[in-house]
Amino acid sequence: MTAPRAPIELREFPRPDLPPGAALLRTSRSEVCGTDVHLWHGRLSGVPYPIIPGHVSAGVVDAARGPIHGLDGSTIREGDRVVFFDVHRTCGRCRACTVHRTPTRCSARRVYGITDSADEGLFGGWSQAIYLEPGVALARLPDAIAFDDYIGGGCGLLTAVHIVERAEIRLGDVVVVQGTGAVGLSAIALAKVAGASRIVAIGAPADRLALARDMGADVLLDLARTTSEERRQAVMDATFGEGADVVVEAAGAAAAVPEGLDLARVGGRYVIAGHYTDVGPTTINAHHQINRKHLEIRGCWGSEARHFLRGLSILERHPSIPFRTIGARTYGLHELNDALADAEAMRIPKALVDPWQTAA
Amino acid sequence: MTAPRAPIELREFPRPDLPPGAALLRTSRSEVCGTDVHLWHGRLSGVPYPIIPGHVSAGVVDAARGPIHGLDGSTIREGDRVVFFDVHRTCGRCRACTVHRTPTRCSARRVYGITDSADEGLFGGWSQAIYLEPGVALARLPDAIAFDDYIGGGCGLLTAVHIVERAEIRLGDVVVVQGTGAVGLSAIALAKVAGASRIVAIGAPADRLALARDMGADVLLDLARTTSEERRQAVMDATFGEGADVVVEAAGAAAAVPEGLDLARVGGRYVIAGHYTDVGPTTINAHHQINRKHLEIRGCWGSEARHFLRGLSILERHPSIPFRTIGARTYGLHELNDALADAEAMRIPKALVDPWQTAA
Amino acid sequence: MTAPRAPIELREFPRPDLPPGAALLRTSRSEVCGTDVHLWHGRLSGVPYPIIPGHVSAGVVDAARGPIHGLDGSTIREGDRVVFFDVHRTCGRCRACTVHRTPTRCSARRVYGITDSADEGLFGGWSQAIYLEPGVALARLPDAIAFDDYIGGGCGLLTAVHIVERAEIRLGDVVVVQGTGAVGLSAIALAKVAGASRIVAIGAPADRLALARDMGADVLLDLARTTSEERRQAVMDATFGEGADVVVEAAGAAAAVPEGLDLARVGGRYVIAGHYTDVGPTTINAHHQINRKHLEIRGCWGSEARHFLRGLSILERHPSIPFRTIGARTYGLHELNDALADAEAMRIPKALVDPWQTAA
Amino acid sequence: MTAPRAPIELREFPRPDLPPGAALLRTSRSEVCGTDVHLWHGRLSGVPYPIIPGHVSAGVVDAARGPIHGLDGSTIREGDRVVFFDVHRTCGRCRACTVHRTPTRCSARRVYGITDSADEGLFGGWSQAIYLEPGVALARLPDAIAFDDYIGGGCGLLTAVHIVERAEIRLGDVVVVQGTGAVGLSAIALAKVAGASRIVAIGAPADRLALARDMGADVLLDLARTTSEERRQAVMDATFGEGADVVVEAAGAAAAVPEGLDLARVGGRYVIAGHYTDVGPTTINAHHQINRKHLEIRGCWGSEARHFLRGLSILERHPSIPFRTIGARTYGLHELNDALADAEAMRIPKALVDPWQTAA
Repeated sequence: MTAPRAPIELREFPRPDLPPGAALLRTSRSEVCGTDVHLWHGRLSGVPYPIIPGHVSAGVVDAARGPIHGLDGSTIREGDRVVFFDVHRTCGRCRACTVHRTPTRCSARRVYGITDSADEGLFGGWSQAIYLEPGVALARLPDAIAFDDYIGGGCGLLTAVHIVERAEIRLGDVVVVQGTGAVGLSAIALAKVAGASRIVAIGAPADRLALARDMGADVLLDLARTTSEERRQAVMDATFGEGADVVVEAAGAAAAVPEGLDLARVGGRYVIAGHYTDVGPTTINAHHQINRKHLEIRGCWGSEARHFLRGLSILERHPSIPFRTIGARTYGLHELNDALADAEAMRIPKALVDPWQTAA
Repeated sequence: MTAPRAPIELREFPRPDLPPGAALLRTSRSEVCGTDVHLWHGRLSGVPYPIIPGHVSAGVVDAARGPIHGLDGSTIREGDRVVFFDVHRTCGRCRACTVHRTPTRCSARRVYGITDSADEGLFGGWSQAIYLEPGVALARLPDAIAFDDYIGGGCGLLTAVHIVERAEIRLGDVVVVQGTGAVGLSAIALAKVAGASRIVAIGAPADRLALARDMGADVLLDLARTTSEERRQAVMDATFGEGADVVVEAAGAAAAVPEGLDLARVGGRYVIAGHYTDVGPTTINAHHQINRKHLEIRGCWGSEARHFLRGLSILERHPSIPFRTIGARTYGLHELNDALADAEAMRIPKALVDPWQTAA
Repeated sequence: MTAPRAPIELREFPRPDLPPGAALLRTSRSEVCGTDVHLWHGRLSGVPYPIIPGHVSAGVVDAARGPIHGLDGSTIREGDRVVFFDVHRTCGRCRACTVHRTPTRCSARRVYGITDSADEGLFGGWSQAIYLEPGVALARLPDAIAFDDYIGGGCGLLTAVHIVERAEIRLGDVVVVQGTGAVGLSAIALAKVAGASRIVAIGAPADRLALARDMGADVLLDLARTTSEERRQAVMDATFGEGADVVVEAAGAAAAVPEGLDLARVGGRYVIAGHYTDVGPTTINAHHQINRKHLEIRGCWGSEARHFLRGLSILERHPSIPFRTIGARTYGLHELNDALADAEAMRIPKALVDPWQTAA
Repeated sequence: MTAPRAPIELREFPRPDLPPGAALLRTSRSEVCGTDVHLWHGRLSGVPYPIIPGHVSAGVVDAARGPIHGLDGSTIREGDRVVFFDVHRTCGRCRACTVHRTPTRCSARRVYGITDSADEGLFGGWSQAIYLEPGVALARLPDAIAFDDYIGGGCGLLTAVHIVERAEIRLGDVVVVQGTGAVGLSAIALAKVAGASRIVAIGAPADRLALARDMGADVLLDLARTTSEERRQAVMDATFGEGADVVVEAAGAAAAVPEGLDLARVGGRYVIAGHYTDVGPTTINAHHQINRKHLEIRGCWGSEARHFLRGLSILERHPSIPFRTIGARTYGLHELNDALADAEAMRIPKALVDPWQTAA
């Protein structure tokens, strides 16, 4: 990706030298997520184009220099199937890292596929090889988990682990999830795994809602066929007229916020996780929707290494969750522009990338 | 108070019979708070006019039937100076009370001075006597605390105890308080007592800010003489450009909300406690102000008996806090309409009521 | 139960008059839990023998006076299958109820089957009818839940809901449960429902461990066939040598405490819930086991109405959990002494009671 | 310190070269804390003797290479009075750092004065100069804070900031502090600053208790003149017979633990922070002291950079707290063996070190 809105170009890179503790990965799968569309739209500031996109990826170790220890306690060897946490550097020294413990806002934070120029090396998954610098948090992909399962979950799964932590979902909670994109679908699955007694999904179109049902939603509300008031009524009907214990915003639409505030019960929690870019202002009523409701609203930004590991353990524990179906289609390197176009048009929940796939 | 907007009428009531556990109080002080102005404006729904206003009050026990145990461990006797928690009934059985533990939203909740008709008896402090029904949470007023100190704090002090609990103010936090009314002034004092390292007060006019300084504010920002951007810059200057750990909204103005969101640091907390009535819509940006900031916003509604007791212990522990100066003037029964007018016009932070005071 | 250690006597009681809001239940199932054995041993102080034991019970409404509202939002009618929360009174006024919010320690707390003398009426489930006084927290038993499922879970299920809340089990936690009695078995099931990635059960004998596996345990450690050090090693092997995120003590044995402290990881949580009676002193090392480990230890006492409701929702949501197998055998009224003897000898996880069952 | 129990030797070191971001400090004050006595006793494992002890220190920048940014937002220049956080490295990559967020247990953690051999350089404060490697967390010492105030607080102050955070002291809490050494005295001061309504200090001898009173204790209980039961009764008398909201163990004695458990109220919190070395087993009763009490016990280990900064802000905010009186006497380099002997015998709360002081 050479510049915003420019077509993806294919380039060849030299094979990097590996310092001790580094590894080279033969990419098996990467993904096109919403962030990649934002990158392509030029909506993120400070991106050092040209970049190799693809922040969550998986592959097989092609070369490793010295013993490399996985964050899962494993020792990584050549030939291992591995996955890694996309945030490869935070400074550990600044006020965000040490005083406030908000490393997701460290100014030195670097993320595969987003913050590193292609001039610096193979720091993105839309490439046949990925350079894993020393200290990257990685783990073996358990044999039972297919690459398509892992990348089907992908960054949406990590975000959903963070959302569930932030929402403090408790055994028996009623949970509403606004949005049935990759993040929303994963949040539905994890809310169920975390013990929610009932999960209401709000989204569109019909095939996404069918996917939401497969992920664990009990009640499906189609944005295209219901009014906001009808959705509110449906949630009240499911909650003794009280509203949900937890509402998760994974819609990225300004109108979702006031609706979500109305769907939470008095004393409930509302996690806002879908506003990753600026989609404009939102109008709320602080008396009715916050103060009088004694509500808690919690923004949720980025994820940390623990979410990555917890996501892996969930994939291993719950093989029946159809994460792979989120990855609707797999694109080769020559089809990346199609992949971006399909993702932009939201024709598919998520596009997977197989950089070794040859054109049909 | 016979009806919204009607002048206050003076009426005589028969002396009530006392069942076991009840007491009759000779009122020493009551107050005119913002809620009383809202009552007079007819902004609260379901109020059974005529009522005797005055929800937080203090007095001397004129008669008590049987042993009465204070929530402070004391035994109450005739002649004791006592204070009581204004919420005199919650059902303890409904879902709000038991399942959600939000007793401030119990539908059977009854509050002195607000929810009880004058036809039911002496349930308000703008009266020379107050009926304390069996089970009211009460406590002896320590000798060292004057009635004017207690009522100067009054309901604003209780709300501020709840705010500080809800804000989880930690040793060394920088705290911004929006609003210098009775609630804001008490919140400033309690933020200091709770160990805030620096307190910024935003309010107006100048004499309120002077009071804010006396209550413990370190930085004063005059709403009338600064722009929103200047206030933002002042808070950033005091916080390494990061914003405050905690922001407290005690202003009750719609414009305070987006400004407050901008004043909190990434990962900070914003407690909304001043929107006790509907002052209209607020426009925010969910991306910049919540999601990306990983912010927590917490509504704060009502108070519970523990806040009442904690408020008392703070008054006793910190006699140098000038709570009594919040109560700018004391009105007799014949001056109640003046008191309401002065409170409505915000000419004074708080009007005190002495129902035994004879007109000058 | 006329006195400690005395044989159970059968008595006839008159049918009670029902005040408004009260109901009479035809008992379908009750249980013999560990507390009943303690009652029989005279280990609980202040019990007003004679009593009708049986604190968690279920039945069909035989008569109801006036509309009765369930805590689940339902309206209860004659013929309905209902269950109720055994704590039928707390004062809502004392310091425990209001200041400290520890209603499980209210001195006026009354519990079916434990604190009410038989002279006061039908306040226990080992009886063909149960008097539900006005205000008891009750709910309809969903049609899909058999009486044997509900009572199989019984008081152990409620305690386990509280344990999971207190343990703050998070998605992906490794959980060790010490004890495979009714509480431990339910805790295993709920830890799984709450998203634990791996559950280790420690108990005996073999058939209990088989039950633990059916409830969701992944690793079984037999107390009779392993040493404490072997169990510690097994937990370390399952946790990268770190220890478990959460350890739950549901064993009621003094030796379980130091072992449990060793099984938790640095920064982990240890919930002590099995020491419902005094089984003597325990020796720990505060340096190695608490201070250096930065550990949190949390006692867990009693349960509240929300745990009762959450337990019901879990039963409805997860019909495949074999709670009914905890109730190994059902006894009629003439067999209650056998039931107590079997429970005392721990021959069965739990004895159910069907007061209408005729002797075989 | 060349080896356990060996006398302190004085050595000369060459002036180190400074890489970019490093600084050399002219030591103004360091301290002899309990950890130093443990080091001298050889009670800590893995210490690379010979070492230069002195982990918390303060001085003036003698030389600095390049711009150095303080964690307080300042830019550090030669001639500045600075202080620094003694933990100078954690890996930021291991499971403790990333997954469990317990950096105080990172295996790569390095601490000035404890974990670095003297062969590696000037990594301790009992030296006329200290090498500040790049990345050390440092801050300017505000002009209003004397070196003796800062080191009088010293590592005990940092630990106390962590204790108060861990104890979640709330406005109006009654707090008991067990122990009147440097940690206990600081905990008393900070409990007061955090809004405790009453503070009970348990310690000995009389002059320490006098110091405890100066630091803010309201009730003094002399270990030498009271029995454990008398102390329990005194705490009950001060708390309506309930026990304290928070108990802090800063005594480092095994007997303190069961006594502390008895002093906390039902639902209270007990922070164990004084068991920094193994002083042997403790006998408790898990039924009466934990389970039935619904108690929370929290170990508290080490401190993090935020505690360092918060400690500084407290010193600046509360100049009237007599931290400097904790540092009873200041020793020169030739008197270090005396300092250790005095600290070992607990003749003084804390010995200060001035490595430039010439013998009298």
